[in-house]
Order: sequence, then structure tokens, then C-alpha cells
Amino acid sequence: MSVGLPALGQVLPVPGVSLASAAAAVKYGDRDDPARDDPARDDIVLMVFEEATNVAAVFTQSSFRAAPVIIAEQCLSTGSRALLINSGNANAATGEAGERDARELCATAAQALGLAESAVAPFSTGVIGERLPVARMKETIGLMGESLQADGWTAAAAAIMTTDTAPKLLSHQISLTQCSITISGMAKGAGMIKPDMATLLAFICCDAAIAGECLEQMVREVADVSFNRITIDGDTSTNDSFVLAATCKADNACIIDPGSEDYATLKAGLCHVAQHLAQCVVRDGEGATKFVTVNVTGARDDDEALNVAYTVAESPLVKTALFAGDPNWGRLCMAIGRAGVENLDTSQVAVRLAEVCVVRGGVRAKEYDEAAAAAVMARDEFEIHIDLGRTSSSRGAGEAVIWTSDLSYEYVRINAEYRT
Amino acid sequence: MSVGLPALGQVLPVPGVSLASAAAAVKYGDRDDPARDDPARDDIVLMVFEEATNVAAVFTQSSFRAAPVIIAEQCLSTGSRALLINSGNANAATGEAGERDARELCATAAQALGLAESAVAPFSTGVIGERLPVARMKETIGLMGESLQADGWTAAAAAIMTTDTAPKLLSHQISLTQCSITISGMAKGAGMIKPDMATLLAFICCDAAIAGECLEQMVREVADVSFNRITIDGDTSTNDSFVLAATCKADNACIIDPGSEDYATLKAGLCHVAQHLAQCVVRDGEGATKFVTVNVTGARDDDEALNVAYTVAESPLVKTALFAGDPNWGRLCMAIGRAGVENLDTSQVAVRLAEVCVVRGGVRAKEYDEAAAAAVMARDEFEIHIDLGRTSSSRGAGEAVIWTSDLSYEYVRINAEYRT
Repeated sequence: MSVGLPALGQVLPVPGVSLASAAAAVKYGDRDDPARDDPARDDIVLMVFEEATNVAAVFTQSSFRAAPVIIAEQCLSTGSRALLINSGNANAATGEAGERDARELCATAAQALGLAESAVAPFSTGVIGERLPVARMKETIGLMGESLQADGWTAAAAAIMTTDTAPKLLSHQISLTQCSITISGMAKGAGMIKPDMATLLAFICCDAAIAGECLEQMVREVADVSFNRITIDGDTSTNDSFVLAATCKADNACIIDPGSEDYATLKAGLCHVAQHLAQCVVRDGEGATKFVTVNVTGARDDDEALNVAYTVAESPLVKTALFAGDPNWGRLCMAIGRAGVENLDTSQVAVRLAEVCVVRGGVRAKEYDEAAAAAVMARDEFEIHIDLGRTSSSRGAGEAVIWTSDLSYEYVRINAEYRT
Repeated sequence: MSVGLPALGQVLPVPGVSLASAAAAVKYGDRDDPARDDPARDDIVLMVFEEATNVAAVFTQSSFRAAPVIIAEQCLSTGSRALLINSGNANAATGEAGERDARELCATAAQALGLAESAVAPFSTGVIGERLPVARMKETIGLMGESLQADGWTAAAAAIMTTDTAPKLLSHQISLTQCSITISGMAKGAGMIKPDMATLLAFICCDAAIAGECLEQMVREVADVSFNRITIDGDTSTNDSFVLAATCKADNACIIDPGSEDYATLKAGLCHVAQHLAQCVVRDGEGATKFVTVNVTGARDDDEALNVAYTVAESPLVKTALFAGDPNWGRLCMAIGRAGVENLDTSQVAVRLAEVCVVRGGVRAKEYDEAAAAAVMARDEFEIHIDLGRTSSSRGAGEAVIWTSDLSYEYVRINAEYRT
């Protein structure tokens, strides 16, 4: 199930980036076991950057950070030339043994690529709490150096999927003052989605020349308006990672000032790709039948607005009403009410479902039309707009937009059956 | 669906308390409409206290407090002699008109009982955002004074139900130093359950003599270990109210000291009844197939433990695993990880499913036995015990126990179909 997942458009190679994908049967112990999901599917990706590439990343804020997250963060802080990604097993809650496993795999990749061991950063996604099948993976990784190619994006986006029903991939071109820039990115994720810095796994590359410090700032700014604005079930993963690489192959004058026009233009292009990928994750949300934008305005500040937006988007009673297509605006009021907004004057609250006003002055709008509201809820995609009415000339206007999905039978089925 | 809801035992009248129940077709506009759920069911309750009764209460912390909550809080602060309770309509998000409706109904009840209008406190539960059918309710309420009786508890507990599958009611007797005390209480609730001061509606009465100030302290203390320790879906209602009445009819020396032995004895008795009722609400949780105790120990303080317990209990991925009977301990680690515990050393975390240790030192326990863990999860009731391992000689041992249910297809069905 998915909601309006866009077809993959043309994927553009990013100068300085090459990729390889391969199958190592990560998820199941016996590669020849006929019970395996899909013995032929790729589940390992190697993404390699040419020299001079700057790489920045943000990672999950979970206390139970997976072994690869811990190691990747160290690698990226000292410069990184390659990413080693596997699906099927998160290598999380595996302790020191899990860290040793990840380092061993990175060492194998580094050897195959002729790089220092610390130049390869590991990423994993899948089941939590299982050890990786290291021997089998090493065997596969050792051969991957030979199959690197610039147009390996489509295969890679498919290889990093877990419960995703489709790969998530977008290319985009922008013009800086001196030259054009190519941006390509991919992401995976469909459940355990409330990124606390980034979604499960997302990788965006561009060929722009940009200083490392600027890129560090950029990755945070881009995450904050894309992967940090989605929720499917409110459950934050142990493995969330969002990597942004700039190969510096383009002829633009290196961006060194976050206040510059080129920085802003590049940021807009990267945000376009990141928001597209983040929205694809929600559209492909486990059991999702609706893609809903929750837009909160009139808050005291943006944090307050964001808190209300998340409380509404994660409320099981709101999400089941979305699934039912029931314009049960009372549940929206309930969720706003429990968001812990200090001294909220509910008589100033207004709620719209797309263009249909359902609440004004904290009560049912006079012009409320149940049929019109139900017609909006019957759509695959719509916006819930909540104005808290807390703005005045003396106070700012806090606002936040997030994207979410509904709670369906299918969500329960997928997550009651996963692992078994 | 419900999990091990106990049969109703003997219900004991509380000296000084009388009740009446009646049917006013609160939920549907047309009392004779054949489409109505159950035209004959009672949906209004009047609970009347004799003079000298002390009444204390705690209410929802929602910003969207329902009209009856606002008025009941005022009434109880100036002394209250009667409670007027209806199911089928929450009179929430109805603004000033809703407050006028509630006051008009209380005035009708007051007149029927020969009391001052301010002596009647209103309580409502049901659909949010609809006006009450005031005319029809007044007609019914006007006649209820004549049917008050001391043993009206069973009918009243049934009349306040909404999506509950069974009434929730318990009587209990305790001995203070000078005499015995009778406690009887009832509650309703099955969804929108994460009380922030009390559950949807709960009323506990006793005949003990206790000073008003002591009772105010008592109601908060009792709520904190009962109704404030349950969650079904994390959604806090607009109408949560827990009322504790002491008729002072018993011969005990009036309790005026919260440090006294009688205060402690009475508190233990009240907690027994309140915890029973709170657990009944979870057992009757919408779609519930499991009754799960989440017990967190080894935290820095009780608040930290409570936060972890709620994060685990409300995680959709944990709840679907509970429904599936899948000992997916990785999801427990995920939920602990996202609870925002500052500087958690995950290598100290241990998790047990009842008697089966599944995580030790932050990784799968060496003696982990999937079959044994699955056998625990197959039970209707079990405990998840999480030790955060943050205690040491220099730090305290924070802990918390809460009760919760699973997330089933049936929860989605009930809440996707409710209202329609």
C-alpha cells in the first residue's frame, strides 16, 4: 500500500560518485534457504566518492544508537571516501560485537577500494538485535569494487529497501552563479519513522564545491525542513542517518559563506530533493492510505507549532479517523488539547480540512458542512490546517508543517507479522 | 474484546450516598429512531450526597477542557452535594453554549433535589463537538429525584459506559482504628485513555470522616498511583474526571493529619479500589487482547522511569508486537532509545518478559530462548520489566509501573467506525 508515490524520473549521475550493489543474503542465515524472502535481491551498496569530496551527516538521537551509527559518525568526522550500506539487518543493540562486525566489513571494503579503513563509513537498516552474517558479507563486498559505476543509483535505491514497496530516488539540476549543479539522492523507510535528525537512511550527493564547514551547516538545515518533518508512527529508529556529499567537481567558486546567494540556491535545490524523498517515505508508510500535511500556524513560536503538529499527526485516534475518512474534528481538538500548550485560549482556535473550515472560535464552525468535510477526507491527500490564534502584534507567529499518514488495518498487519 | 475483566462482586452501598439512573436518549436526536444503538439504555446518572460530605476531584489537563469539566471544578471548590453524569455526548468543544447547557441541566437537577444550583456538578462523556439534547435531558432529570437509592451503583456503572464492554465497579471494606469503612467506586473508559489527572470518569465514595483539605491531598495521591498510571492509546480526553467523596457518616475520629495511621489505611483502601478500576479500563481497552504491566527500575528518578514506561507502552511498534505475541525485544530497545533519557549507557540496560531475560548489557541475553519468550508473550497478561541500570550508591533508584494494552485490528476498526 502507498499513497501517490511518484514514478521514478530520470536519474542523473553525480560527477565524482560511483555505486555498486550486490546480494549477500544479509537477512537469512542460509543463502540457499528456499524460505528466504527473495534470494536474488541486492542488499549491499557501496557508494564511493572521489578525492576532495566533503561529506556531512546527521544521525538518530536515540540512546540505542546502532553500531554502524556510532562508527559512521567517527569516520565522517575524520573524512570519508566511501559508504557501505546494508539492508535486512540493523546491527543495532548488538553491543561491542556489533561494532567489531561493522569495522571488519569496512576494512574489507577499504581493502577492495585501496582506501584507509577509517575512510569507509557503515550504514545498516533492518531487524534490530541480530548479528550480521559477516563472513558472507565480506565475501560479497570483496568483489564489489569491480562493479562500481556512475549510474548505479537505481539499483542502489532498490537494494537499501526493507518494508518499502518502491525505491525512493530523485535527481535535480540547479544553476549557481557560475555553473549548473547536479543533485541526486535516495532514501529508504516505511516504518519506525519519526526521524530525530534524519530518516532511516538517506543519501544525497551533488557535485558542487562547498567547504566542509558550510556542508555541516547545510546538512542540518536541510534535515530540519525535510526528514525532521515527517512521522508515520512516532517511533524513532536506532539507525537514522542522512548523509550529504559534495564532490566539488563542478566549476563553481567554492561556497564558503552560508550567507551567500550560491549557498541559498544550493540549499533550495537540496531541500527540493530531500523533501521529495521524505514525502516518499510517508507516501510509502506502512499501510498508508492517506498522505496528510499538518500545518500549524498562529503559535507563540515554531517549537510550539511543531509540538502541536506532531501530537495531532501521531494521535492514534486522529490517525484512525484519517483512515476511516471521518471528519471527526472533535479528535483534532482532543489532540490539540493534550499537546501541552501553555495557557491556550481554545476560543481562538480554528481548524480547516483543506478549504473546508470545521472549527472556528474553538467550536464547530457555523458554516460547517459534514458532507464537504467528508469529501475532503475521502481524498488521498489533503491538508489539516490548525491556527492556534496566539499571535498578536506583540508576539511572533510560530508555524510548522509536517507530513504524515494514517493508521490502517494494514499497518497493524505488517507490524504484527514482521520478523515472523 | 477485553482481557480478563473480573466479574462484578458484591456492591456495597456507602452510607450517605444514593444514586439514580435513567434513559434520556442523549446520543441520538430522535428518541424513537430505530437506528439508535439501544433506545432503552440508561445514559444519565444522579449521585447525591448527604450533608457534611466532603468532595474532592482531579480533572484533565487538556487545553480543550469540556464545559462540564470547567463547571464541575468551580462547583467542587465551593462544596458539592450532587453529581449529574451523562454518557453519549462529551459536551466538549462546545464553547459558551455548552457551558450554558451544562448549567441549565444542573439547575434542573438542583430544583428536583431541593439544592442550590451551584451544589450540582456536571460530568459528560461521549462524542466531542455536539450540543447536548437539553430539553429531552431536562425532562428526564426532573423525574430522577424520586428514584434515588443507596444500591443504585450497578445501574449507574452501566449507564456511564460508552465503548466499554462491561461496567467497572468495586466495593471494599477496611478497618480504621475505631471503626470499619465502606468504599465503593465506578469508572468508565476504553479509548482516548491516557489520563493526565484522572481517567475519563471515575467516582469513588466512602463513609469515612476526613477533613476537606486532607481529602484534596488524598485524591491527588490516589490518582497518581492508579488512573495516572494507565495508557491505551496515549490520547488524553477532554473530559477526564476523578471524584472522591467522603460522607463522614462513619464513627471514626475525623482524619485531619495526612501523616496519621488512619490516613494511610484509608489511602491504601482507596488505592485498592482505584487501581482495580484503572486496570479494568485497560482490560476493557478498545480492541485489547493483552493486559501488560510495564515496570521500569534503575532510573535516575521516578519521572525518568515513568517517561520510559510510557514511551514503551505507547509505541505503535511495541503495541503491534504485543498483539502478534512476537518477542521482538529490538523494538523495546528502540522505544527505550527514543525516550530521551539523558546520557543513557545502553550497555547497562536489561529487559525481562515476565521471568524470561531477553536483554542484558544492552544486547540479547546469552541465555535468550526465543521459544520461552514467545510463550510469555502468548499469555493474556504479563510484565515487561526494564532496568535502566542507572542506579549506584550515589544516585537514587527511580521506578514506575504502568498498565497498558496492545494495538490490534479491532482497535483500528472501533475507531475507524466510531461516530458513523
